[in-house]
Amino acid sequence: MKISELGEFGLIDILTDLTKECKQESNRNILIDSGDDAAAWQNDSAVNMVTVDCLVQGVHFKLDKISWRELGWKALAISLSDIAAMGGNPKYALFSLALPGETDVDNVIDLYKGILELGCRYNVKVIGGNISKAPLVFIDSIVYGAANSPDIMLSRSAAKPGDEIAVTGYLGAAAGGLKIVKSDLPLSGEIKDTLLRAINKPLPRIEEGQKLAAGGVKCAMDISDGLVADLGHICQASHIEAVINIDAVPVHPAVKTAFGNDALDMALSGGEDYELLFTAGHYIIENIKKQFDCPVTVIGKIVAGDNYRVKLLDRSDNTYLPSDKGWNHFGK
Amino acid sequence: MKISELGEFGLIDILTDLTKECKQESNRNILIDSGDDAAAWQNDSAVNMVTVDCLVQGVHFKLDKISWRELGWKALAISLSDIAAMGGNPKYALFSLALPGETDVDNVIDLYKGILELGCRYNVKVIGGNISKAPLVFIDSIVYGAANSPDIMLSRSAAKPGDEIAVTGYLGAAAGGLKIVKSDLPLSGEIKDTLLRAINKPLPRIEEGQKLAAGGVKCAMDISDGLVADLGHICQASHIEAVINIDAVPVHPAVKTAFGNDALDMALSGGEDYELLFTAGHYIIENIKKQFDCPVTVIGKIVAGDNYRVKLLDRSDNTYLPSDKGWNHFGK
Repeated sequence: MKISELGEFGLIDILTDLTKECKQESNRNILIDSGDDAAAWQNDSAVNMVTVDCLVQGVHFKLDKISWRELGWKALAISLSDIAAMGGNPKYALFSLALPGETDVDNVIDLYKGILELGCRYNVKVIGGNISKAPLVFIDSIVYGAANSPDIMLSRSAAKPGDEIAVTGYLGAAAGGLKIVKSDLPLSGEIKDTLLRAINKPLPRIEEGQKLAAGGVKCAMDISDGLVADLGHICQASHIEAVINIDAVPVHPAVKTAFGNDALDMALSGGEDYELLFTAGHYIIENIKKQFDCPVTVIGKIVAGDNYRVKLLDRSDNTYLPSDKGWNHFGK
Repeated sequence: MKISELGEFGLIDILTDLTKECKQESNRNILIDSGDDAAAWQNDSAVNMVTVDCLVQGVHFKLDKISWRELGWKALAISLSDIAAMGGNPKYALFSLALPGETDVDNVIDLYKGILELGCRYNVKVIGGNISKAPLVFIDSIVYGAANSPDIMLSRSAAKPGDEIAVTGYLGAAAGGLKIVKSDLPLSGEIKDTLLRAINKPLPRIEEGQKLAAGGVKCAMDISDGLVADLGHICQASHIEAVINIDAVPVHPAVKTAFGNDALDMALSGGEDYELLFTAGHYIIENIKKQFDCPVTVIGKIVAGDNYRVKLLDRSDNTYLPSDKGWNHFGK
């Protein structure tokens, strides 16, 4: 059935029921759930956080290259990643969907199943949203998170000269997935699956973000635009400069195998890896490494400077220029 | 200059500066403002509320019929109205904008000026958002509000048999404005201005919503889909039925003048008036009337019943059927 046949309110009823079926710990703090003018909950934390992120058909995804279920997962994941990058505990989510009338209702149900699959994993409740008609698919995911104290929070503006720069996990896999999606590369098997999963079903580093904040890290962000571009945002916000040792960058093994000489640039400039990029003193990072199950790699250091730039150096201390500069809407 | 020439981050810088220039009471609770992964603020209220509402080009507005400044005002107004309908105090807003690359930067600045003009009036701070590329204009406004207690809050599910049904202000003006926008009616002067202002620059009933909640009202919503459709939502949520005396409905005087015999149906079914629809006992409403500067009109009553329907009666107790049923995306 198309949603133009079911109607807005019929669709809302189905999605609300799906949300209620989702087996999650009950949350007695929720006062008013989906279906009223606004959602409301009783406060139980010192600090609130909120973020919004958007997926637009034709700009961020193509419907023949990602399943609706993956699309739902990804829409929630990219906002959860923002809360992770603040060291927060994500609690509630709202979705604003704009959809063509000819969209199949089952597709929207699959979208919500993807949202709820990831939401259940982190006990994030969908408490509301909005549905509108549009000529193409737009998805805004809004996630609210909490922290127990303003002192245990990660921001982009807290990097200091002398800090080491580190990243979680491996980089470049989402860029590899994007290349497969864009140009139907003749890859198959486990490597193809790994790279497509990276772009279509990213896993936000929620627990890691909280551990960074608890472990004394003050400065972090998630890598959504690409390592160099995002480190540039930290430089701008913190009024410092950064030096990356390109040989230390943890390029994803599947990207090395599939893309050889291009792999390093994909790790430096490819977006959407949703790994955490953070800076802190040497001993804090050594301590963090011991606590984490995923790799934590020191890739450079923060230095004083007025140009707020990221400098890339190879093993001979020569400046390295990657082939592109990372994601930027409107191409500037 | 087009935003494709300025780029995403240049645009974000301009809008962030505009937001900071806005003369509002400083808010020391804001910990992290625009420009980080998420916005964060220190909590100072018992209950949090959040709502999201959407404006899509070609569905909710046409760019040759509304100015960018009005569009910004309206985008914030429709979400503020949801918080008003909960009896909340709106505090923070985020905007997710999706825009074509050829959009003029000055237009986006005007959009933000409209947002900030209304935001300043109610001391609502813009603390973040998202900007993305898209083939058409898409605006999501997210507003966070607060209440001091779960007991002082308005919901759609609290109507009880015996309650009177009342509305603030006059109805049908936005429907009149929409007719002008859609078909270039030969209207002019004050009536045309009034009707266009109703559709392009609605004023949310924020103070009135808070007074309703403080005055003992428990059930309210804002009229966005149309009186009959929205009262139907209250019937469904409260498991009751409603009877409207059509002769009591406060049709906007400008609509009566401009549209004569069609005016009543426009007041019953036209959406986007953003007046408050509420139910309460007789004495509570009498008391509310004394406190309000705007008209408060009793238009019917809540009765027990299992069909959760709205019944319209004329002065002879005959059932009245309006010509349409109100706004519903996807037309069902």
